[in-house]
Amino acid sequence: MSLTVVGSIAFDSVRTPFGERERMLGGSAVHFSLAASFFTEVGVVGPVGEDFGADQLAVLAERGVRTDDIERVAGGRTFVWRGHYEYDLNTAHTDDTQLNVFGDFAPKLSERSRAAQMLFLANIQPQLQRQVRAQCDGAAFAALDSMNLWIETAREPLLAAIAEVDCLILNDAEIRQLTEEPNLARAARAVMSLGPRAVVAKQGEYGAALFTERGFFALPGFPLEDVRDPTGAGDSFAGGFLGHLDGECDEIDEVALRRAMGYGTVLASFNVEEFGVERVARLRREEVEDRFQALRAMTQFEGLPA
Amino acid sequence: MSLTVVGSIAFDSVRTPFGERERMLGGSAVHFSLAASFFTEVGVVGPVGEDFGADQLAVLAERGVRTDDIERVAGGRTFVWRGHYEYDLNTAHTDDTQLNVFGDFAPKLSERSRAAQMLFLANIQPQLQRQVRAQCDGAAFAALDSMNLWIETAREPLLAAIAEVDCLILNDAEIRQLTEEPNLARAARAVMSLGPRAVVAKQGEYGAALFTERGFFALPGFPLEDVRDPTGAGDSFAGGFLGHLDGECDEIDEVALRRAMGYGTVLASFNVEEFGVERVARLRREEVEDRFQALRAMTQFEGLPA
Repeated sequence: MSLTVVGSIAFDSVRTPFGERERMLGGSAVHFSLAASFFTEVGVVGPVGEDFGADQLAVLAERGVRTDDIERVAGGRTFVWRGHYEYDLNTAHTDDTQLNVFGDFAPKLSERSRAAQMLFLANIQPQLQRQVRAQCDGAAFAALDSMNLWIETAREPLLAAIAEVDCLILNDAEIRQLTEEPNLARAARAVMSLGPRAVVAKQGEYGAALFTERGFFALPGFPLEDVRDPTGAGDSFAGGFLGHLDGECDEIDEVALRRAMGYGTVLASFNVEEFGVERVARLRREEVEDRFQALRAMTQFEGLPA
Repeated sequence: MSLTVVGSIAFDSVRTPFGERERMLGGSAVHFSLAASFFTEVGVVGPVGEDFGADQLAVLAERGVRTDDIERVAGGRTFVWRGHYEYDLNTAHTDDTQLNVFGDFAPKLSERSRAAQMLFLANIQPQLQRQVRAQCDGAAFAALDSMNLWIETAREPLLAAIAEVDCLILNDAEIRQLTEEPNLARAARAVMSLGPRAVVAKQGEYGAALFTERGFFALPGFPLEDVRDPTGAGDSFAGGFLGHLDGECDEIDEVALRRAMGYGTVLASFNVEEFGVERVARLRREEVEDRFQALRAMTQFEGLPA
């Protein structure tokens, strides 16, 4: 199987109470693809500038991520995000955003990226998400992330984009904002009435909840005593979630979705242990599996922890 | 087995986006004891005024709650709380508090209340909690709740009270505030170093997490499409949690604590479906069990929902 992701490739400058970094490799497509790479073949679609170097590409290539659909824009500069977090690591404070090459991005997918079985539309302008969805029309399962900015400035295109995917993966506050429904269970049902058959509500340190027609499932965040940088946690979650579904599940049924929630939770937890992609870039599959089993033990209603 | 609770008995006036009520029966000891009454024999210790009537006592008596240690203060008035909630039902806004008979409360436990196997010190002044703990010295398991007010104004007595119990049940933000540790896992460990062997972090609609030496366990809030009044949810949680431990468990081990988290979650979910004690007062044990099984199915990592 194979998985295509379209999203940002960025230089992130981040400060948290536990340290800071300048111009780290980041962006939603980067965090997503590294996380998904533990489970399936994943290819990234997105633009970079001339300042994006071989070192950055090598981080992706070392995890087997296909980078041939990363478009290098002559004379352009890579997307830049600068932000910080206080002790409440659930809230990112954006200090600067420079769209750069993302301002004129017109996605053009190669045959190989178009042929993917699964598609993730990371948080970019909804019109671009729709263009990619249209090009990748053979994908049997597509998921989409978004943010408050697009809910507020591009609501109609966003609703149209959501109608064209199978799964919405969004922060719970944004699911409420999108549907104008304060109750999360009702809000998730409203999203499903638009088209998606699964809704994943990301809840920061509290974990994530899954709503489907069959029911409700939720996992806590994996408990960590050291969280250094939450940037990219949501995309790592999505990467673990969709990567497992694409690479390790014959069918996307309720059981598969629940296990995928577990892998998403595990990848997000590794992501936040260090800055940027530092931890996930050197992660091993056995570590993923060990933590998945630990999470299972932690959430078993009856029975002892591992 | 039997369970003693000391805490407030109140008239609550509450407004939420879904309605309002004046002078409902409320208070931490009331919500706790009604919830616990589905599992064990429970007796309430606390003061009321002359305005507390037979109707209010009857609500407790109908659920089999022992009320003979409810002290009726001649010439006194019952504790009053008035508050409201916006659409974010996780945050209570207090509009008025009248301590009334609580201002001079000096707990005097009957022989029967002293002889309880289990004790819950609901959220009252820490010095009073310590007095009750000292009187109820045969209790094999004691748990304590508190709030930001006491963390800020009575920190030392509160720390001393916590050192004398087996379990702390507190909102997660207050656990962080108490320990001055923003990371919840570290904060819970800091609490355990004071004495308690279990820490339950209440997380509002996100559910609750259990920390013990053996490990970590968490449950989401039971998903509800209709939440009308969250007042008393935390005390109903504690009532279901300790009630199950006292009445239905031979030993308070990890398995028992996890199941008890489930019953706490279930009782809290019924509590918030209607105003005050309306829903729990007419709840039936079969409904508790049905929802417990539904919660189990919803949190099983692999396997289909019920």
